[in-house]
Amino acid sequence: MRRCKFCGSEAYVQLRSPRLAMCEEHYKEYVERKVERTIHRYKMFRKENKILVAVSGGKDAIAVALTLHALGYEFECLHINLGIREYSEYSEKIVRQQCEKLGVPLHVLYLRALVGRGVGELKTRREVCSYCGTTKRYLMNKFAWDNDYDVIATGHNLDDESAFLLGNVLHWNTGYLARQGPYLPGGNALVARAKPLYELTNYEIAKYVALFDMNLTTEPCPHAKGAKSILYAKVLNEIEEVSPGTKLNFVKGFLKNRELFQEEPVELRACRVCGMPTLREVCSFCRMWGVKEELKLQVEHLQDSEQHDEN
Amino acid sequence: MRRCKFCGSEAYVQLRSPRLAMCEEHYKEYVERKVERTIHRYKMFRKENKILVAVSGGKDAIAVALTLHALGYEFECLHINLGIREYSEYSEKIVRQQCEKLGVPLHVLYLRALVGRGVGELKTRREVCSYCGTTKRYLMNKFAWDNDYDVIATGHNLDDESAFLLGNVLHWNTGYLARQGPYLPGGNALVARAKPLYELTNYEIAKYVALFDMNLTTEPCPHAKGAKSILYAKVLNEIEEVSPGTKLNFVKGFLKNRELFQEEPVELRACRVCGMPTLREVCSFCRMWGVKEELKLQVEHLQDSEQHDEN
Repeated sequence: MRRCKFCGSEAYVQLRSPRLAMCEEHYKEYVERKVERTIHRYKMFRKENKILVAVSGGKDAIAVALTLHALGYEFECLHINLGIREYSEYSEKIVRQQCEKLGVPLHVLYLRALVGRGVGELKTRREVCSYCGTTKRYLMNKFAWDNDYDVIATGHNLDDESAFLLGNVLHWNTGYLARQGPYLPGGNALVARAKPLYELTNYEIAKYVALFDMNLTTEPCPHAKGAKSILYAKVLNEIEEVSPGTKLNFVKGFLKNRELFQEEPVELRACRVCGMPTLREVCSFCRMWGVKEELKLQVEHLQDSEQHDEN
Repeated sequence: MRRCKFCGSEAYVQLRSPRLAMCEEHYKEYVERKVERTIHRYKMFRKENKILVAVSGGKDAIAVALTLHALGYEFECLHINLGIREYSEYSEKIVRQQCEKLGVPLHVLYLRALVGRGVGELKTRREVCSYCGTTKRYLMNKFAWDNDYDVIATGHNLDDESAFLLGNVLHWNTGYLARQGPYLPGGNALVARAKPLYELTNYEIAKYVALFDMNLTTEPCPHAKGAKSILYAKVLNEIEEVSPGTKLNFVKGFLKNRELFQEEPVELRACRVCGMPTLREVCSFCRMWGVKEELKLQVEHLQDSEQHDEN
């Protein structure tokens, strides 16, 4: 039986990089300290900031909420109901349970109420996962901007980020590389985005969340496909198996060299419909969903409309 | 039964990227044209250059010799007998058969005769494969320099190069990245190095060489270990399986972006023992093998000594 390195009691988890066995108590502390260090290292936010945590119902988003809560940060949560029928109803139910249990305020945006349709019901050549990503990023940012949040924290973890990085390196998408990282500063109607789980793996996060009595969404999205990112994550795990620490060193080495990929700043203008930054006359969100008038996402507005926040 | 895209006869090979089935005759032509295009694209050498092909007995080196021969280039071959007992005797025998069959001049250098020991008999903290690589590169270059060759062609292929690239990207070895590529120009006592198989995979090369009645070394080197590069090649093959063309696009995208990794040129000086370029007072080859006097590798010299060229 493995013993906790800190107290000698029975180990709950055994990490390979760093090589470390820990009991439940010390593992919880370890993860929370690691998140705290990540927040400081990348200057993500401070206690006095107005923080919005994007929650999906999955283990990563709730891990952000759980660790920030344990570390004494105040924050509110945002969930976007994407209108994917039962799947979205189910996800929203789980998120409501999670936030209630944690005692943190939750705001819910209903895509169907805002634009009349849900994800999967759009006629476009873009893949569903691609325009769903654009939609979520837009709504998250618009909500945070309209309600004066300083930063949006998301559940992106080391597996996501290293897989994304590998895909961008294999294709030498140098533009994407320049904009990738644990913290993307805000400005020009873009609210800063932070990834407090940037240095934690799927495994580490799952073991952390399992310490809490929290329901998680376990259903996969009906639109999810065998994405390339799953393949990249898989091969990185194979390499990690032989060389523990590869994923973390890969993203850290990238961050040290990120300035190599810096490009000329582009000229953004305000979308004619919603005023948010875009390269074109109308931003991709308003264009693809056929939005004709700015969506007002101020909490006061939302509470008067049918997409009210029940929390 | 698959048919040759060019003549409709039974296909010998089916490639996935580009998607192409070919008979023996047309596949042979395809590979040779591809090598010709690679030579031109990267401005490796011309018919009037004095070309040295480094041959090991394996499929890649002989594929360089076979394609250059078919394309009408004149060249000579160099084999380095590394003094790894039976393994080296066996490799040399195969190389001699290959060159005789092809009717090209072969030079053989004997490490044991030159420095008194063979690979595997050196006391050093460096791994055998690492110092063996340094040794081969030194002797190849010294021989080519002493005998006025314009360029050394080696059998590095797309699998080798993409795996090496992946390893360097995962570790962000930006210095190595700057110096990687299909053609490394010479200068300052370094003879130019060219990789005519840069855009061909292991599979493509094996299918090409199988068209000739050539013996190949099939024994692995007794010092070979489960190197990281094998793991990187394996995961790239997994990705290639799902996205044919990934390896080629990876190295080509890298070449387009290679200038990102350019570093300040370093000041090289002449090794106190042999005069070859080095960062230190004595170059790594002379230092690790304890060489006290310049090895004279001019063919005239070699023919007078015990490491004579029997070809």
